[in-house]
Amino acid sequence: MTSLRELLRVGASVDLKDIDPGSTPGLPGRRVTGKDQKVWARGQLAPIGAQLARFQEMLFAGAQAAGDRRRLLLVLQAMDCGGKDGTIKKVAGAMNPLGLHIVGFGPPTEEERKHDFLWRIRRALPPAGLVGVFNRSQYEDVLIARVDSLVPERVWRSRYWQINGFERELANDGFTLIKVMLHISYDEQRERLLERLTDPTKHWKYNPADVDARARWTDYQAAYNDALSRCSTDHSPWYVVPADRKWYRDWAVANIVLEAFEDMDLTYPDPDFDLDAERRRLEADRAPAMTS
Amino acid sequence: MTSLRELLRVGASVDLKDIDPGSTPGLPGRRVTGKDQKVWARGQLAPIGAQLARFQEMLFAGAQAAGDRRRLLLVLQAMDCGGKDGTIKKVAGAMNPLGLHIVGFGPPTEEERKHDFLWRIRRALPPAGLVGVFNRSQYEDVLIARVDSLVPERVWRSRYWQINGFERELANDGFTLIKVMLHISYDEQRERLLERLTDPTKHWKYNPADVDARARWTDYQAAYNDALSRCSTDHSPWYVVPADRKWYRDWAVANIVLEAFEDMDLTYPDPDFDLDAERRRLEADRAPAMTS
Repeated sequence: MTSLRELLRVGASVDLKDIDPGSTPGLPGRRVTGKDQKVWARGQLAPIGAQLARFQEMLFAGAQAAGDRRRLLLVLQAMDCGGKDGTIKKVAGAMNPLGLHIVGFGPPTEEERKHDFLWRIRRALPPAGLVGVFNRSQYEDVLIARVDSLVPERVWRSRYWQINGFERELANDGFTLIKVMLHISYDEQRERLLERLTDPTKHWKYNPADVDARARWTDYQAAYNDALSRCSTDHSPWYVVPADRKWYRDWAVANIVLEAFEDMDLTYPDPDFDLDAERRRLEADRAPAMTS
Repeated sequence: MTSLRELLRVGASVDLKDIDPGSTPGLPGRRVTGKDQKVWARGQLAPIGAQLARFQEMLFAGAQAAGDRRRLLLVLQAMDCGGKDGTIKKVAGAMNPLGLHIVGFGPPTEEERKHDFLWRIRRALPPAGLVGVFNRSQYEDVLIARVDSLVPERVWRSRYWQINGFERELANDGFTLIKVMLHISYDEQRERLLERLTDPTKHWKYNPADVDARARWTDYQAAYNDALSRCSTDHSPWYVVPADRKWYRDWAVANIVLEAFEDMDLTYPDPDFDLDAERRRLEADRAPAMTS
């Protein structure tokens, strides 16, 4: 199978108009077709999740026992209802919560606004050995900040290369960066917003302001095109995952993370103590000492 | 079925010697016996986990959409190899990682030592709407701090009532506190340490210092007896979960959390916007505006 990352990776330039949000690139279509694809992809999540959890443990073990500084950071961006939360639930949810570091970024707080836009991002980075997930990220500062004119153009324009420099620094420090844009269609967003109005257990997810943002859809798509094209680098590539079909989205993101883990050549660290001596100590020790 | 919390709750005074770490209180033994119990309890984890995830979402929704300040905090304490990590993996792992706030407490850092012992605990509290898990806690300061004489006796003695006052404050602020001591036997600890020496994928978990702590087993049990007895209050009870059998431990902790959730009378919040008006807005809106 061709690498899914190769298929979905953003090259020198991308236009979201050319990518069908309902498509399912990389699915082994010759073997399974139509409705079976959904069943097949959903069925793959558990075994892929088990592999993710195993790699995650090796990453954690390397940091704990051998001072390995590597870590993996999954950055998720999408329009409202694009499925960031659902993806985290399914993909990160397959891993051990002890080894996860999940951070969401909302509108900057008063304190955050006093600092450079990367200040809050740096503070939220995962420590060595963990799998980080960013639910939104530094890219909000070239998306909503641009579309809503929160800063002058010269400010947001200078952020593309600032982000590239920042991400280069992270890569040099042992980060494997995976940036995923979940790409949904305008129609699918309406369906999902309507569903939040229909299902009483989803009312709380509905925010009337999301419909206001929807009015700026084409501006957002243009801002995404620029962010994806300018900031997809060798050390920190962007992937566009067609996301109208949730089962494809989850399968694709899980596979992208799995491929990245595979490239890391992770192993369990060797012990830095004498196995036999420790075993003898323990085998001799059969009853608690009465010390006090 | 009797409430598991009633069965496992620490009353006015407890002595761990009187609780068999291999026992399985509260299992419906008349229906399932022997080896079947393990299969049955393991099989219960998925449906209980689904209920936990649903309650967790309601808790989150209430905070997001209705300003509900409630939150749940599970505090785990145990001797080394007692199963804190495994319990988190199984019980918290059944919930949505987006709604979890897991913090582990190791030896205090230099900065932490400059402050009161509760300083780092306060900074690590879960925000409203989240399920917090403490992997070790403020109780380390009346356990290892006492056993290893890290502070004078008058200092650790004053901490019991400081902890009780602190936890009372949390309860008043909307916390549901669940404190669980995972109770393993001296023999079981040796078996688990030996397994870490035998299985190459577990070597990284082995720390020779754990065997040194093991030499102070009886002192630790005495320190636990005092902490459990002095700090099991109505607003913040302690539970002792027999933990030599991992399948019982996971089942019991999941059930304790489930019972606590049930007491919270959680519901999805009502919408604070006009459902029909929003629906009409969306239904009229079928193509993106060409704004720029």
